[in-house]
Amino acid sequence: METVSTVRSHGGTQGVYKHASSATGTDMTFSVFVPDHEAGAKLPVVWYLSGLTCTHANVTEKGEYRAACAKHGLIFVASDTSPRGEGVADDPAYDFGQGAGFYVDATEAPYAGHFKMWSYVTEELPAVIAAHFPADPARQSIMGHSMGGHGAVTIGLTFHDRYKAVSAFSPIVAPNQVPWGQKALKGYMGDVGEVWRKHDAVALIEDGARVPALLIDQGEADTFLTEQLRPELLADACASAGIDLELRMHPGYDHSYYFISTFMADQLDWHATRLKA
Amino acid sequence: METVSTVRSHGGTQGVYKHASSATGTDMTFSVFVPDHEAGAKLPVVWYLSGLTCTHANVTEKGEYRAACAKHGLIFVASDTSPRGEGVADDPAYDFGQGAGFYVDATEAPYAGHFKMWSYVTEELPAVIAAHFPADPARQSIMGHSMGGHGAVTIGLTFHDRYKAVSAFSPIVAPNQVPWGQKALKGYMGDVGEVWRKHDAVALIEDGARVPALLIDQGEADTFLTEQLRPELLADACASAGIDLELRMHPGYDHSYYFISTFMADQLDWHATRLKA
Repeated sequence: METVSTVRSHGGTQGVYKHASSATGTDMTFSVFVPDHEAGAKLPVVWYLSGLTCTHANVTEKGEYRAACAKHGLIFVASDTSPRGEGVADDPAYDFGQGAGFYVDATEAPYAGHFKMWSYVTEELPAVIAAHFPADPARQSIMGHSMGGHGAVTIGLTFHDRYKAVSAFSPIVAPNQVPWGQKALKGYMGDVGEVWRKHDAVALIEDGARVPALLIDQGEADTFLTEQLRPELLADACASAGIDLELRMHPGYDHSYYFISTFMADQLDWHATRLKA
Repeated sequence: METVSTVRSHGGTQGVYKHASSATGTDMTFSVFVPDHEAGAKLPVVWYLSGLTCTHANVTEKGEYRAACAKHGLIFVASDTSPRGEGVADDPAYDFGQGAGFYVDATEAPYAGHFKMWSYVTEELPAVIAAHFPADPARQSIMGHSMGGHGAVTIGLTFHDRYKAVSAFSPIVAPNQVPWGQKALKGYMGDVGEVWRKHDAVALIEDGARVPALLIDQGEADTFLTEQLRPELLADACASAGIDLELRMHPGYDHSYYFISTFMADQLDWHATRLKA
């Protein structure tokens, strides 16, 4: 692991790091905020998965998470959204290929070689974090935005023992049923309905996956709300399954980091309560 | 005035606006955050002046000021740092010309035509804000970063009745005595020592300008500290003049927005106390 940069901020260290990923077969860059802590202490870890077109940098610069992480003593990890670079397959559209890995392991050519974001964020990067940072593997939680909200909720449902809290900002909750998701799941994994259901929050819940609680913040002025996000589908699935979903609709707010940053501290407070329990 | 964009954030409206400036003879872009407020209310205004290379966008995206402004009911205005565009003189260096207006009115060719940032931020833009936003002209304060800290402190000292609070992050306090300032003041205003003293915080204080108090946050790991910023010169001038300077030195912090954002809420708390008095 190579340190790209570190800077002091909000009573901690904001770092950017790079490593050669065996999952993706590329160099991968990620950011980690570590608040000041006692020597030898192990801190809870919040995972943040970003949305379409983003790298680690968007939330690192605009997410306004450091004050809350410093207050609660939380490590904050932000990964990239796909492998990148020459020799990595890409698509001219913003919603597929580089910057749009959808947190799945691709099986379809030409993406199968490098696009292993499920394995990367659930296996390889956690091991890197555990090896290089004062992280407590027994206290992890996960959140994300849009495509990354999809990633956070599907990973949280799948590894329900690992993540003590699962939340999202304006997530894609039913990729099987919306254009962004249908394009990506087909492009990365082909026409295999059973596989798709493992990467769809609503389908996972219908098929029995459970978490104690979910927190979702959603802007009502989000231009993707009715076609791509459809939080009502998650609300229905949670109601049927008995999952305690807190779906907070926010009049006037859009899909941007101006929205995310507004509710970031609230979500981190919610995570902190569950990570210390 | 043209609205470039508005977005809801932190319980208010973050806007970006553009207007044809008579001071600079160019279009100028600025941002304004207006927290939600009662109809007809007039809110205090905090002016933020940015540093070298910046536009309004840097602090708007990375400054982390909105939560504190919403809490205190403060309007936050961020201007550009120079005129820009084709037909506007420029210099290949980052510290002179476009992006480096130094908050002075240039008198030297080829900058005299457009580089009127002193008039712009002290006269023209305040009139635009008063005309288009729910701003209370009797309750204004000013802060800035680096070159913008120089602007904020010199303007605050000059118009001491207008600004109820004056603060800065890592300001240039004595441009007459440091390379950035000497280059800029000579380039914009020629070899005129008397004029330079009106745009140098330490010289202004030596020549009799007063404010009740100043708050400065400065990172000790700032690479510009010893050559360009030299806060000890301001400390000496304030001590001699009886100005209540709170100079907070922060070990490990650098010159970036990772530093500014860390102490933004503190500075806004300090402004709010003085703006409501």
